[in-house]
Amino acid sequence: MSFRILGVDPGLTRCGLGLVEAGRGRSLRLVDVGVARTGADEDPAHRLLHIADELEAWIRRLEPDAVAVERVFAQHNVRTVTGTAQVAGLAMVAATRAGVPVALHTPSEVKAAVTGNGRADKAQVQEMVRRILGLEQRPQPADAADALALAITHAWRAHAVGQVHGGDDARAGRQTSAQQAWARAEAAARSGGRAQRVTARPAGRG
Amino acid sequence: MSFRILGVDPGLTRCGLGLVEAGRGRSLRLVDVGVARTGADEDPAHRLLHIADELEAWIRRLEPDAVAVERVFAQHNVRTVTGTAQVAGLAMVAATRAGVPVALHTPSEVKAAVTGNGRADKAQVQEMVRRILGLEQRPQPADAADALALAITHAWRAHAVGQVHGGDDARAGRQTSAQQAWARAEAAARSGGRAQRVTARPAGRG
Repeated sequence: MSFRILGVDPGLTRCGLGLVEAGRGRSLRLVDVGVARTGADEDPAHRLLHIADELEAWIRRLEPDAVAVERVFAQHNVRTVTGTAQVAGLAMVAATRAGVPVALHTPSEVKAAVTGNGRADKAQVQEMVRRILGLEQRPQPADAADALALAITHAWRAHAVGQVHGGDDARAGRQTSAQQAWARAEAAARSGGRAQRVTARPAGRG
Repeated sequence: MSFRILGVDPGLTRCGLGLVEAGRGRSLRLVDVGVARTGADEDPAHRLLHIADELEAWIRRLEPDAVAVERVFAQHNVRTVTGTAQVAGLAMVAATRAGVPVALHTPSEVKAAVTGNGRADKAQVQEMVRRILGLEQRPQPADAADALALAITHAWRAHAVGQVHGGDDARAGRQTSAQQAWARAEAAARSGGRAQRVTARPAGRG
């Protein structure tokens, strides 16, 4: 049994897309990763349409069991938040229209899940994504790594709460202290193990 | 020759939709108005999908020549801006996918265009929409009136800049002082005329 998660790091200039497959023994492997790009000089509506088309093409081609999207907050990056929120919305609609459950995870949840530190920097996230997926090199650019980190976060959470798919995670987006503790324990356990085979241990919920 | 504009006042709880037709002599008439609603207790992705479906149905059914959407700024209404921005993005994609040009207008541009005051309150906008379209009653709720006000604003601007359709307006979203002056002159001219027949006078730019 395998479970495929498409992570989406929303953005209008660069939208990260990464699909991770959780297989037997809860190992994770990279299936595909990429970035949908649009030019800042293009018409905003056409930029959004281009990203929407890309999102739909990825979902159609890779048939994920869940789509994990970064939860966008208005207080972050005020200058670019409108486009970021719009792309996140397009990903949510594309997934839901295809019958695929959507989960939202905050940036700090993702950083905590993959590095054990909710304030980790981009390089640390990229390095942990590389190790967890057993890649030769760090995924580039950061948007691609962030999309994979979202997918990894969701894979572990979905397993941790015993879900076959992640439909409830959209509502469970706020991380409890128990979940944070679990994320830290996860990271500690991972740092001592082999990179290519990562085992997520189920955790109780607070 | 007539020119049909669908105005969209984006929102996740209530999304205003209003179609106005600009006919001979630049008169404006109401074709249809409504509100797409979703419940705050529903799953966010399903709320967005419902609104996307409604937007597409309106565009398919009414075949507008242009779609005028409120330009969303992150600094306004921080609490709800994410959902508002997402619905605006869905409207932009639905229109562009259907081959319909999109124009963005700020709330203050719309208020200035229909009332002559960029800081007019909701009741004033509703009253002017009622007069301009020759309606018996003020459109309710405010979101419906705002959608019609967006369509009216775009109709006048498209005429003022000599456009058959408003494709350039997305880029011309920031109002120059000349356009503001034009909007004020428009409002003054209207307040002295009959409500049902509104004449937009072309204005120089810049």
